[in-house]
Amino acid sequence: MEHGPGAWTRRELLETAAFVGAGAALATGVGGSAMAAEAPSAKAPAYRGEHEIRPLPFDPAKLKGLSEKLLVSHHDNNYAGAVKRLNQIQQQLGSLPADSPPYQTGSLKREELLAANSKLLHERYFGNLGGAGPCEGVVATLLQAEYGSLEAWERDFRQTAQALGGGSGWVIVSYEPTSRSLHNWWAWDHMHQPMGGDPVLVLDMYEHAYAIDYGANAKGYIDAFFANVLWSEVNRRVDDARKRLAT
Amino acid sequence: MEHGPGAWTRRELLETAAFVGAGAALATGVGGSAMAAEAPSAKAPAYRGEHEIRPLPFDPAKLKGLSEKLLVSHHDNNYAGAVKRLNQIQQQLGSLPADSPPYQTGSLKREELLAANSKLLHERYFGNLGGAGPCEGVVATLLQAEYGSLEAWERDFRQTAQALGGGSGWVIVSYEPTSRSLHNWWAWDHMHQPMGGDPVLVLDMYEHAYAIDYGANAKGYIDAFFANVLWSEVNRRVDDARKRLAT
Amino acid sequence: MEHGPGAWTRRELLETAAFVGAGAALATGVGGSAMAAEAPSAKAPAYRGEHEIRPLPFDPAKLKGLSEKLLVSHHDNNYAGAVKRLNQIQQQLGSLPADSPPYQTGSLKREELLAANSKLLHERYFGNLGGAGPCEGVVATLLQAEYGSLEAWERDFRQTAQALGGGSGWVIVSYEPTSRSLHNWWAWDHMHQPMGGDPVLVLDMYEHAYAIDYGANAKGYIDAFFANVLWSEVNRRVDDARKRLAT
Amino acid sequence: MEHGPGAWTRRELLETAAFVGAGAALATGVGGSAMAAEAPSAKAPAYRGEHEIRPLPFDPAKLKGLSEKLLVSHHDNNYAGAVKRLNQIQQQLGSLPADSPPYQTGSLKREELLAANSKLLHERYFGNLGGAGPCEGVVATLLQAEYGSLEAWERDFRQTAQALGGGSGWVIVSYEPTSRSLHNWWAWDHMHQPMGGDPVLVLDMYEHAYAIDYGANAKGYIDAFFANVLWSEVNRRVDDARKRLAT
Repeated sequence: MEHGPGAWTRRELLETAAFVGAGAALATGVGGSAMAAEAPSAKAPAYRGEHEIRPLPFDPAKLKGLSEKLLVSHHDNNYAGAVKRLNQIQQQLGSLPADSPPYQTGSLKREELLAANSKLLHERYFGNLGGAGPCEGVVATLLQAEYGSLEAWERDFRQTAQALGGGSGWVIVSYEPTSRSLHNWWAWDHMHQPMGGDPVLVLDMYEHAYAIDYGANAKGYIDAFFANVLWSEVNRRVDDARKRLAT
Repeated sequence: MEHGPGAWTRRELLETAAFVGAGAALATGVGGSAMAAEAPSAKAPAYRGEHEIRPLPFDPAKLKGLSEKLLVSHHDNNYAGAVKRLNQIQQQLGSLPADSPPYQTGSLKREELLAANSKLLHERYFGNLGGAGPCEGVVATLLQAEYGSLEAWERDFRQTAQALGGGSGWVIVSYEPTSRSLHNWWAWDHMHQPMGGDPVLVLDMYEHAYAIDYGANAKGYIDAFFANVLWSEVNRRVDDARKRLAT
Repeated sequence: MEHGPGAWTRRELLETAAFVGAGAALATGVGGSAMAAEAPSAKAPAYRGEHEIRPLPFDPAKLKGLSEKLLVSHHDNNYAGAVKRLNQIQQQLGSLPADSPPYQTGSLKREELLAANSKLLHERYFGNLGGAGPCEGVVATLLQAEYGSLEAWERDFRQTAQALGGGSGWVIVSYEPTSRSLHNWWAWDHMHQPMGGDPVLVLDMYEHAYAIDYGANAKGYIDAFFANVLWSEVNRRVDDARKRLAT
Repeated sequence: MEHGPGAWTRRELLETAAFVGAGAALATGVGGSAMAAEAPSAKAPAYRGEHEIRPLPFDPAKLKGLSEKLLVSHHDNNYAGAVKRLNQIQQQLGSLPADSPPYQTGSLKREELLAANSKLLHERYFGNLGGAGPCEGVVATLLQAEYGSLEAWERDFRQTAQALGGGSGWVIVSYEPTSRSLHNWWAWDHMHQPMGGDPVLVLDMYEHAYAIDYGANAKGYIDAFFANVLWSEVNRRVDDARKRLAT
């Protein structure tokens, strides 16, 4: 259920209160030894590592030009692996000694960014598959406005994708809240992102997204991707993103 | 003025209509040669390169522990340089021949991401300076909820910052719309970002942000940063970000 | 044929003389307009882009656990593609206007590094395949010396490789001339390398090196890699590298 | 004292024998428990972390346009910090449990590459300072051969350097043993390197190399760099590198 801007959800209020309460109790040392006083941080959401694996939102046997074997491997190994790794990493961050050298925090924070973005990007990727053309609605209007025509947009998008062939990366169509526009972005790995944008259409160009079916034929994969885009979901994401004000 | 989710602003409607109209006219070839038919793309917003340099939102002579010389150099050289470069890059992208090799598009799209994120991150950075402690409001509540205590949050933030000392990068506190939480992220350069998050507090750890005043003393700079945070702006950004629904 | 340190090969002398001669003639303006005076740079070796594709040094039908289809695709698409791209990039660098913005040089120099290293790494990779265990000779002695035992070395190597699974990168055993030792290095993409070291054993962890045969099963691929290492070639490379003096 | 290619130094033989002997004894379980049997790895050179900080090879008060304050800070903080960090990282790698997740090895191996390359690059950098022009000798001949003229080489080098201004990175002139040529390379951070090349002239473009003296004026710093190059050392490195055979 929707709630207005500025309101807290009931769940937010309960969780925040419970957690802050627990922390406060420990911070004042109620019944706590020095070791107990450190406990909150390990139990803090930042370090809990309780992210859950979402199932594929479509029947992997039914996509055009992308095999069930490929899609299930992509989901079960690459996506699910990132979620499990993210949980391990965040728990490890929560158990770092206070005097550990900065490079240790830094190296784990890098792994965290890598795994967290991989998780979220894969969820968007699977979420924008399972449909069929054509591009329409607000998305079509905004892409046309930004690139002059849908053809010009698609050429820019495909060229960026091809440039990532044979390596790792993503092509990201992001809604930028300040300019209220959609734009194509190049990303070298999971960690590259347009700042503050909301990715509404993402194309995974890691080779695990296509090599099982297409080998080195990135172009064949990009064609298959376009044949399966769920434009209604892309439109839903843009509608959602547009609820933010420009800053 | 605010407008409800799903509505278009008057400006959006006018601009989109005008632009799509222009494109349509050319696409149907009205009065156009082949060369004219290609014109829209170069004039499309994606390739216009008309981003503007914003002035510093505070008096650079008045910050604590960060000199006017440093702040003005940071703004006039690093930030303004990124905006100018972004404009050049986008115009160059718009003039690429249709048959240019993918690596050329890719390499320019990388430069675009680098310059665009540098622009936006710097605007957020300067925007969250000019104040003074303490951390309070929704931001304090959310950080406490995520990390157990403000002290635990600050320790994590400072360790991440220290790990970036002597190089390039950012520490980014981002509002994540799905979990409705704030989290610290490590970023190696302008291109690294938490996916889909909204950076509400950013710390520039590029050496140009401090070397003029602090040399290699990253810690001294991080202390100065904390002394100048404009928490009211950080709270404003969180309020803004929270208007989005979880997806 | 070998020639002693410090000597020039006949070919080196001839080529250098011819080229410098040509340059000098133009530099003194003999018969040259301003445009002619710029010609040398485009014809300079740095910008010629005449790198050649080497054939696979083994029969791709005969490796254990790595299919001919995979190996031929890896060679013909990924390796050969890098060589062709390198040639294009260097020629483009040679035709940049003198007043082009630095980001343009920088972005092409990045593509050059990516393609050049990809070329060389792939040549080393294919070159260290086609054999069978066990690790022996100077290589075994040096690895044992560096890691305590061959088992300890292999564990470190395999862990590093596994960490790159599902993405891009290389594991590089490099001869370091100062310490006269062999060491395992992690590389995120073609551009990461140990400084000044001589890669004597390299493992391609880009997914194109295994996904066609192993899908996401990086471990299965690493096992296959070990079953095919041509240790005599690795030993030959170490012998070659050891001819340098420590600096 | 020099020794011929293929020969072992006395020190190499002694160290290798002693170390392998120790390992062998433990491996056969002489007097050893299971825990003792694991001891060698932590004591293996790979994990010893005993790298030493070298002093500046010149009097930092005597360089042209680079202040003593800058050079001493660069050496004592950035370079020495990398050496210390490298030692910590390698020791930590040596104490990782055998069942630690691959990402943990990977993240530390990344830190190791970063610190090890930073150490070596800085040693080359300080080592190629302390002199004065002009470029001459074999280096001049090879640069002229590769780029057509020294002016063309310098333009390429300076453009690459400018492209790295305001961030991190290196410009690396590397001797490539296969082509027996010198070439300019772009490097985004310490981890980027030309494969298998021998860096004979390196320019540190991290902002800590100049911001104290030049602020954001990268060009001023590049000019100062050229005024201080120790070309005799660059020539010495090329002579050393040329002792290797082409492979």
